Formats: sequence, C-alpha cells, structure tokens
Amino acid sequence: MRILSLAGGIGGARFLRGLQAAAPDAEITVIGNTGDDITLFGLRVCPDLDTVMYTLGGGIDEEQGWGRAGETHAVKSELAAYGMEPQWFGLGDRDIATHIVRTQMLNAGYPLSAITEALCDRWNPGVRLIPMTDDRAETHVVVEDEQGRRAIHFQEWWVRLRASVPARQIVLTGAEDAKPAPGVLEAIEQADAVILPPSNPVVSIGTILQIPGIREALEAKTVVGVSPIIGGAPVRGMADACLTAIGVETSAQAVLELYGSRLLDGWLVAEQDAGVALDGVRVVSRPLLMTDVEATAGIARAALELAR
Amino acid sequence: MRILSLAGGIGGARFLRGLQAAAPDAEITVIGNTGDDITLFGLRVCPDLDTVMYTLGGGIDEEQGWGRAGETHAVKSELAAYGMEPQWFGLGDRDIATHIVRTQMLNAGYPLSAITEALCDRWNPGVRLIPMTDDRAETHVVVEDEQGRRAIHFQEWWVRLRASVPARQIVLTGAEDAKPAPGVLEAIEQADAVILPPSNPVVSIGTILQIPGIREALEAKTVVGVSPIIGGAPVRGMADACLTAIGVETSAQAVLELYGSRLLDGWLVAEQDAGVALDGVRVVSRPLLMTDVEATAGIARAALELAR
Repeated sequence: MRILSLAGGIGGARFLRGLQAAAPDAEITVIGNTGDDITLFGLRVCPDLDTVMYTLGGGIDEEQGWGRAGETHAVKSELAAYGMEPQWFGLGDRDIATHIVRTQMLNAGYPLSAITEALCDRWNPGVRLIPMTDDRAETHVVVEDEQGRRAIHFQEWWVRLRASVPARQIVLTGAEDAKPAPGVLEAIEQADAVILPPSNPVVSIGTILQIPGIREALEAKTVVGVSPIIGGAPVRGMADACLTAIGVETSAQAVLELYGSRLLDGWLVAEQDAGVALDGVRVVSRPLLMTDVEATAGIARAALELAR
Repeated sequence: MRILSLAGGIGGARFLRGLQAAAPDAEITVIGNTGDDITLFGLRVCPDLDTVMYTLGGGIDEEQGWGRAGETHAVKSELAAYGMEPQWFGLGDRDIATHIVRTQMLNAGYPLSAITEALCDRWNPGVRLIPMTDDRAETHVVVEDEQGRRAIHFQEWWVRLRASVPARQIVLTGAEDAKPAPGVLEAIEQADAVILPPSNPVVSIGTILQIPGIREALEAKTVVGVSPIIGGAPVRGMADACLTAIGVETSAQAVLELYGSRLLDGWLVAEQDAGVALDGVRVVSRPLLMTDVEATAGIARAALELAR
C-alpha cells in the first residue's frame, strides 16, 4: 500500500510515527512544508523537514518536539558574544551540522530535494521525505504594531513574537512561481490513500497546498484529514492565531470547510466535535489526542479505514 | 612607539604576548599570515589570524596553542556522522562560530581585513591585527608519493599528513595578483621598529613577504628577526620540513641568509648559535625559549633593544 502524507513540524512528525506503526508495510511518502525555512547566519534552516527527519530517525528531542536530543548550544552563545542577530531562534550545535551540510550542498548547486534525500540517508526515517518545492517560497506575515504595518518572516512572528502580535495577512511569497519538487506529483498520483495529519491547516498543510499543481493533484485522490482542532482549540501550537489571520474560526467545522469537499473525502474529528458535517465528506469522530505512539497509531488506523 | 610585527600561528602569537609585556605602551600592528586559510564545509577558516586573536584576547586553548579554551566538538562529530570530509581538521564548536561570522560577512561582500577588525572588536587583542592581503593567496604544497606528484592544500600536508610526505615545492598560489590589505603598507611605513617573531620562516613570515610590496616596504625599515631555529632544530612545529622543501638548511645561519641583509638589520639567536653572522646584520645571542610570558618578554625586549 502506498500512503501519501503532507506534514508540517511537530504535530505532523508525531502523527507520522503513529502512521508508520499503523501501517508498517506501507510505502509512505511525505511532502514536507518548506514555507517556514529561513536563512540564519548564512545557514539554510528547514525546521519542518528536520523535525520530520529527526523524529522518524530517532534523533529528536522528545520533550521539546523539535531539535536534537542531547543538544548543546556552544555555537549559539558564541554568535551572541559576537553580537550576531537573531538570538531568538534556538540553533543547537548538533542541529547546526545539518544546516552546514545543507548549505554547502545548496551552494554546490544541489536542489533541496536531493539534499533532503542525502540527509535522510543518515537518518533512515522509514518514509520518503520530499520538500514541497525546490524553489524559494517563504511564508511572511503582515503585522501591525507600534512600529507600523510590515511583513516579517514567519519564524520571526512565530518564534520571536510567539504570535502575540495579530497577523493581518499570511503570504507565501514566491508561491506562484514555485514548482512541486521532483517526485511530488508522481507520489500523489501513485498513492492509494492521502492522509492529512493534524498539522497547522494554514502555515503547514495550507502552505503545501499553495504550490501550483499540488492541490489539483490531491483533489483527484482519496484524501482523509485529521482535524487539528479539538473542541475549539488547537491540538498543539498556535494554529488559532493563523486561522484568525485568514478569517477562519478555530473549529473542526471551519477547518473542514477551509479544506473543502473538493479536497477532502473523509474528516476525522474528536468526539466532542461529532456534529461537524460537510456535503461530500464522510465525517467520523473518535479520540484524537496523540498521547503516545499507540494512541496515535489508533488515529492513523481510523484515518486509513476511512480512506478505504 | 610604533612596533610592527608579522605573525604566523602559535609561535608568533606567543611571541606577541611577550612583546606586549615588553612594550606595554607601544602601538603594535600585526600583519597576519593568511596563506594557511582554508574553506571547510563552506566555512572560511583563518587559522593564523584566529590563533593571534584568541591568544592575545584570552580565548586560546593554552595547552594546545590553537583553538578555543573549553572547546567542544558536537558539530564536527555530527558532520562525521553525515559522512562529511575532511575530518582531519580540528574544528571546535566555539571556533566554528567565528568561521560562521566570517563566512557570512565575506558573502555579504566585506573584505577579510574589515571582518578581522570586526571579530577583534570582541576579543580586544590589544594589537591592530591586519591580514596580509584581502585577496585569495593560498599555500599549496607539491608532494610526491605512491599516488604520484600532486599539489595539496598546505593544511592537508601540515595537519593531515603532519608533513610526513616530503614537500617538493611550496607555492603561494595567487601571490602575484595579491595586494597588501588596506593599512599594511601604511603601518610598515609608520613603524619605528619591525620585529619578526620566531614564526615559520617559509610558510608564515615567508608567505607574508611574498605579497608584492610588503618585502620592499620592510627593506626600508629597521627590522630585527628572532631566529625560529635553536641549535639546528625548530623552536616548535615542523619548520624543518618547510625549510628542506625550499632547499634551506635548518639552522639559525641558513634562515638568516634566507631573510638576507636587505631585509634584516638585527638577528637574535640562541646562545648555542652564537657564531652565526652575516655582513650588514647585527647578531646578538641570548636564551630564546619562550617558556612563559616573562621569558618571552625578555626576548622581545632584547629584540627591541637591538632595533634601537
């Protein structure tokens, strides 16, 4: 069985671990979000790709959900001693090695998809991980505060400001000219089922869907989504701030409508959201908390059943 | 008083510490060797500049003589886990931050001299440190072994092979087109005395002298050299391997002749080399071992007296 999944960072990576447990014999391809990517100190950082790679490859800081286990921060504190900005992004020493490899390969002319494959050669995540695009498409957030109205990089809004300043707009700059990375459309076409994990519907899944050709290809497939909203609150993270920015309510119903019935065939919601409905989409309710791998595997199993 | 000094790595840096102690009120300008510079993992590494900066700025690993005190190696071991080469160069985490800052500034278009000044803003080495050139001039070594005759980067010969393969030739590639960095010729011109520390006469001092214009400018000044050879052996390091490569004997006499009387006005040798002589150069002998800062200050004081 061939399963295709889209993924953002922590939530997506944890769901994928459950999906692997639920379908150990399946060939799983993951299209990773690269809208959050950022260049820091000249190093290209791909937070979502790395979170998936480290989580499935056994290198993740389990408690934190991102970054490397047993991490140290010598480079970061030295950069601070040199007065280098920004300091709000948590770059660990082990993690930096990944960015050094990636940056060196980018400078040598390799596309991000080939680099991601090379990095995964070490981590053996058990899935094929492909970035949504090899092109530069970065999520920027339009904010308005005492400094006026301005667009900032998603990471500055998300990590530095912790989404505390309301977003007026969320824009994937460069989206129109971006092409799906090699293998993305083929993987969608060959998939027996497509599962959308409970990743952020705006800046993770929504970002991937903005790359021309991806949404269209997915609409031809059987797609089941797992709601990232339980009883009016995000499963984790600050998805509500992103939904508010695009004028969508933080509810399982509103996210279902945001994805729409052209994309979705099935929608898995939490028990307290049992009333959610949309014409053309089969909605099933069950416990959705990813408390551990076994619980998560149960959710993934339910999504796969719904896809059948 | 204005003192100008040339410097390689460990030996030069240690001598400079003595020079500072000997002449606490002097304005000291140091022209640093950049022939050993190398790009590793996309990061520009300037071993000699950094050794001077860390040593005089209090950040050096005192025992090792290079690299940072309290160093860790998380990045390096991660790069190894990714199968990245080379692994023979000892890049520590703290040190890597310096290279990240430098590389980012180089990519932003700053010349190495401006970057070195910016890095020294943090370290306050108490001297003005200027790279010999902002241009790319790299020391390559022609070796001949079972793999045939080939030119390798100086660091590969020095660090990886530990100079165990005889050098047939040592070439500063790009030397003809290199210009002294801004401030180098002015600093030479304004100097009251020029002191050559007991750095490697071939790949440290000799390299700096190959940048067009520097030797000529120095010949017009009072220059005193401290012999890097004591009783037929290098004070430290493997200077003998370099001298052999250019057909010069490892002796205080031979290095004196290599520098020559057009460059040198005074030559400080160890007591066991008291017989050394060259027309036009005043030779003085005294203990030359840089056992500690006080002993080194004594050597520097003798060199300054000889310059008067």
